[in-house]
Amino acid sequence: MSAMTDRRTLVLASASPARLGLLRQAGLDPRVIVSGVDEDALTATTPAELALVLAEAKATAVAAELADAELVIGCDSVLELDGRALGKPADAAEALERWRSMRGRSGVLRTGHCVIDTANGRRASATASTTVHFGTPDDAEVASYVASGEPLQVAGAFTLDGRSAPFVDGIEGDHGNVIGLSLPLLRRLLGELDVRITDLWA
Amino acid sequence: MSAMTDRRTLVLASASPARLGLLRQAGLDPRVIVSGVDEDALTATTPAELALVLAEAKATAVAAELADAELVIGCDSVLELDGRALGKPADAAEALERWRSMRGRSGVLRTGHCVIDTANGRRASATASTTVHFGTPDDAEVASYVASGEPLQVAGAFTLDGRSAPFVDGIEGDHGNVIGLSLPLLRRLLGELDVRITDLWA
Repeated sequence: MSAMTDRRTLVLASASPARLGLLRQAGLDPRVIVSGVDEDALTATTPAELALVLAEAKATAVAAELADAELVIGCDSVLELDGRALGKPADAAEALERWRSMRGRSGVLRTGHCVIDTANGRRASATASTTVHFGTPDDAEVASYVASGEPLQVAGAFTLDGRSAPFVDGIEGDHGNVIGLSLPLLRRLLGELDVRITDLWA
Repeated sequence: MSAMTDRRTLVLASASPARLGLLRQAGLDPRVIVSGVDEDALTATTPAELALVLAEAKATAVAAELADAELVIGCDSVLELDGRALGKPADAAEALERWRSMRGRSGVLRTGHCVIDTANGRRASATASTTVHFGTPDDAEVASYVASGEPLQVAGAFTLDGRSAPFVDGIEGDHGNVIGLSLPLLRRLLGELDVRITDLWA
């Protein structure tokens, strides 16, 4: 029975406060251990594959450090627009340019997820994709948003849970996936590892 | 210029912590004044119309109490399933029954929004609709969720920002509208009143 109790400990292999917030809102209370993965050292042929490769690398690196039986969650998000993967903008000028080109259009937010059960080495992983329909903020709104500094901190230069929420008209899919972690996908991946998500509630 | 400064004060005519949280995440910091509207005394022919009538009644009641020039926001949410408007479940047995009948299906969350500018009496209102695709929690998950008490507190017996988030596979539309307030719709309604939402940032 002690093994059963141990394996219910969750570890989030990500420094993202947005991911931690989503898990906490859903009644989960993971420890946070940030991996030392060099994201720029990994490559893939598509944005969806890149998100998955990075999620797996983060979860694998953190799982390797753990002695106890725990469930490790790794995630990585990219915004795909015109087939290109967009991460964080380099500076305010790039954030401004991004918004001028993406307003009124749609992109796809892809988040790779990987869950590893260190009790037995089993893993489950998948990428969730959510279509994001950007609204049409005017030049003054875009300038105010960039001046707030927020878009420089996030993949795709926008947030669904921050100051640009009024500039996103709607989505198709799971909103948590856009913020950084899909809870319905996490539930499915945990199920593949024979763990019921409600049994993880704090 | 004092009138310009005054009219930028926001008032949320709702006791919902979820609505307040959405506004704060988006950089807005409203005062909260709860209306004394008797929701059961109002009727309408459709769930969408009911949400709008209630939102307008709440905003109107609070606006009438204010002496200063302020922007008052009223909202009301209902889940429409099979043409019926579903509010909060009466008890645990009803919450259990709701989830057994709605899992694997889709509903439409309708939130009425009304914004009143007390400086001039102008108002703008509309209802936003978001399709919600429920997942398929098993009987043990539904029982755990109902036992948590959360579904008894919310319209439709589910949350997108709480413990049932893993049981919602996805949405079509704005996620804030499901949680209680659509920020892109609020931006549009403020625009109709010649107010830019970024000018309201705290």
